Amino acid sequence: MSVATDPEEQYKLITKGLQEVLNGQIIKDVLEKEKRPVKIYLGTAPTGKPHCGYFVPMIKLAHFLKAGCEVTVLLADLHAYLDNMKAPLEVVQYRAKYYEYVIKAMLRSINVPIDKLRFVVGSEYQLSAQYTMDIFKLSNVVSQNDAKRAGADVVKQVANPLLSGLIYPLMQALDEEHLGVDAQFGGVDQRKIFVLAEENLPSVGYKKRAHLMNPMVPGLGQGGKMSASDPNSKIDIIEDPKVVKKKVNSAYCAPGDIKDNGLLSFVEYVVQPIQELLAEQDGVFKFDIDRPEKYGGPISYTSLDQLKADFASEKLSPVDFKAGVADKINELLAPIKAEFDASPDFQEYQQKGYHQEQPKAEKKTKKVKNKGTRYPGAGKPDGASAPEAEAEAVTAKLEEAKLN
Amino acid sequence: MSVATDPEEQYKLITKGLQEVLNGQIIKDVLEKEKRPVKIYLGTAPTGKPHCGYFVPMIKLAHFLKAGCEVTVLLADLHAYLDNMKAPLEVVQYRAKYYEYVIKAMLRSINVPIDKLRFVVGSEYQLSAQYTMDIFKLSNVVSQNDAKRAGADVVKQVANPLLSGLIYPLMQALDEEHLGVDAQFGGVDQRKIFVLAEENLPSVGYKKRAHLMNPMVPGLGQGGKMSASDPNSKIDIIEDPKVVKKKVNSAYCAPGDIKDNGLLSFVEYVVQPIQELLAEQDGVFKFDIDRPEKYGGPISYTSLDQLKADFASEKLSPVDFKAGVADKINELLAPIKAEFDASPDFQEYQQKGYHQEQPKAEKKTKKVKNKGTRYPGAGKPDGASAPEAEAEAVTAKLEEAKLN
Repeated sequence: MSVATDPEEQYKLITKGLQEVLNGQIIKDVLEKEKRPVKIYLGTAPTGKPHCGYFVPMIKLAHFLKAGCEVTVLLADLHAYLDNMKAPLEVVQYRAKYYEYVIKAMLRSINVPIDKLRFVVGSEYQLSAQYTMDIFKLSNVVSQNDAKRAGADVVKQVANPLLSGLIYPLMQALDEEHLGVDAQFGGVDQRKIFVLAEENLPSVGYKKRAHLMNPMVPGLGQGGKMSASDPNSKIDIIEDPKVVKKKVNSAYCAPGDIKDNGLLSFVEYVVQPIQELLAEQDGVFKFDIDRPEKYGGPISYTSLDQLKADFASEKLSPVDFKAGVADKINELLAPIKAEFDASPDFQEYQQKGYHQEQPKAEKKTKKVKNKGTRYPGAGKPDGASAPEAEAEAVTAKLEEAKLN
Repeated sequence: MSVATDPEEQYKLITKGLQEVLNGQIIKDVLEKEKRPVKIYLGTAPTGKPHCGYFVPMIKLAHFLKAGCEVTVLLADLHAYLDNMKAPLEVVQYRAKYYEYVIKAMLRSINVPIDKLRFVVGSEYQLSAQYTMDIFKLSNVVSQNDAKRAGADVVKQVANPLLSGLIYPLMQALDEEHLGVDAQFGGVDQRKIFVLAEENLPSVGYKKRAHLMNPMVPGLGQGGKMSASDPNSKIDIIEDPKVVKKKVNSAYCAPGDIKDNGLLSFVEYVVQPIQELLAEQDGVFKFDIDRPEKYGGPISYTSLDQLKADFASEKLSPVDFKAGVADKINELLAPIKAEFDASPDFQEYQQKGYHQEQPKAEKKTKKVKNKGTRYPGAGKPDGASAPEAEAEAVTAKLEEAKLN
């Protein structure tokens, strides 16, 4: 895949498909005046296991890398650890490694150069004296109300929210400075946090950054309607092809309904953009359904609009559409699964990060949480219920070894 | 001065004159079962210059030391620095040294052994990885509402309070663990913060501490009625005797009024307790007024109640009472001023901590703040308006040198 070098083309790629861009001029200036790679960061908390919805932000990382950007993925291990304290920090850090391997495999699977992609683990710098001082300083210019408003769209929607929900937005702002980026990328659910960062970083002596926002895609675990507690709504990135078929078959997909249709969203927001990336051409689309001869034989679409129209008019049935989607997902996952099967490290990180995972007890009632796009695995059972004392010990050990 | 060794006597001294004690059993257990010195900490933010109201907590430190306790004074330089960012952290740290010298001189002036008194500067440990991790952890068990309620009595009463006001109570709780104490001492205005500490430290694996609370003394800069913006209400610890006389003379002191009378409070909450400490006997009181012969000659009181009664019945006039108070204050300050005059270090810290101090512009309107007893100098002009860039540079330098 070629890398764009013309500033206009680069900017077009960087902002392609985004719902909103704040301070795009900052990016243009880097491209046109400073003539250097734009530095962009995406934060993600390694909580559950990455699922297929994770393709959506990865497609944007692909655009950034294809536009010659230097992309940093912040693996927010502290956030993930603190978020429920069920798993020791050590386990969370294996999850962070697993995320790194998944992200690299996903990008390689769509033929994107990853030499300008770096991974930073939050605990590497978020416990430093300088960072802590910056949190204190920022907490002295940001009001309680502003912090509350900033986190409103991504923080747990509970009756008595935790103080951490007010501190996280400050950290997300400071990460821009401490990671040395020009722009932060996230879902549009991060908008208020991004605005808080823009408004307050200059007050503590740091520059304002640009912000790039992806739309929220329904049914892909990105703030859409599908319940995070329904395991069928989440297809793991390393999923057995038969399980993919089973999960797709059990997904909600009413005849003629093209609005509340997570599978159709997947085709629109994942399948088509990946095909465009691979073909290096907009508008490219190919969706084949291997329908048995007895039901009318194979169908082939070369237009997403046509596919939608046929589904809306019930010319295309859910059963046939699901068969096509399952095949497509397996096609996308095949190279990633191949990497996983070939890499003992990749397997080890999965094993150590998730080996204590157990099926969630069905009867357990669960508060509805919307943790935002920084928590793509949110809602997955993690079950790793090591005692708090162990967590403490591991924390102390890690800090001793790495941070002091 | 002798040091108490009997647990009952020690406990009586530790809790003498306090308005409230929470979990006194923790202290009793240390004295009776563990048979070791009780460890108590007092936090103070070195903002303005310590004034005569500072005798009130110092009398309690004297009680603690006399009871054989190990007393830690936390000089909260980060809080003082962040509180207005007007003075660079370097200047704040000179103020911390000045506070240390003042406190030692005050205690020596009332003949208290200070070998079990230690001073810790907040920035020495409050920017460490372990402390920061603890802030994150605590912020994940304390709700926004609870933090808000905890700080309600001491945080700036403004329309849009800053986020720092929610973080400080957490730090005050964690300081108990990181300073390794059994109890925290403060004004009763700290009560809600103390309760927050008791309720939440166990949630992050730390033990609950006892809490010792002094009453709020009216008119002594401890939450009383006198305005912090009236310079006459604040008599510096290193004050010229003539200025003391002038300030006492201009203090509010209506004939017969023993309720709203800061000078009478001073006699009750400072003069008498110090006399009791020096005499090692409760109820001791001596208050002489050097009244000129032509107005009736000297007056001598050996009972505070009698003094009050005479003032209430206007048998003792404000003019005469003021003369007696001014003499008494100068008597208390004399040994402290002598230490100051004899110590080049003491003088240097004052000079470097407050040299940029300028008289406050009279016309400048000021928000009414009640910063609580942790900020005894609050409201004093500090005027040291070094540019923020300098503050940043100093912070970075200090961190490099001391914290990493």
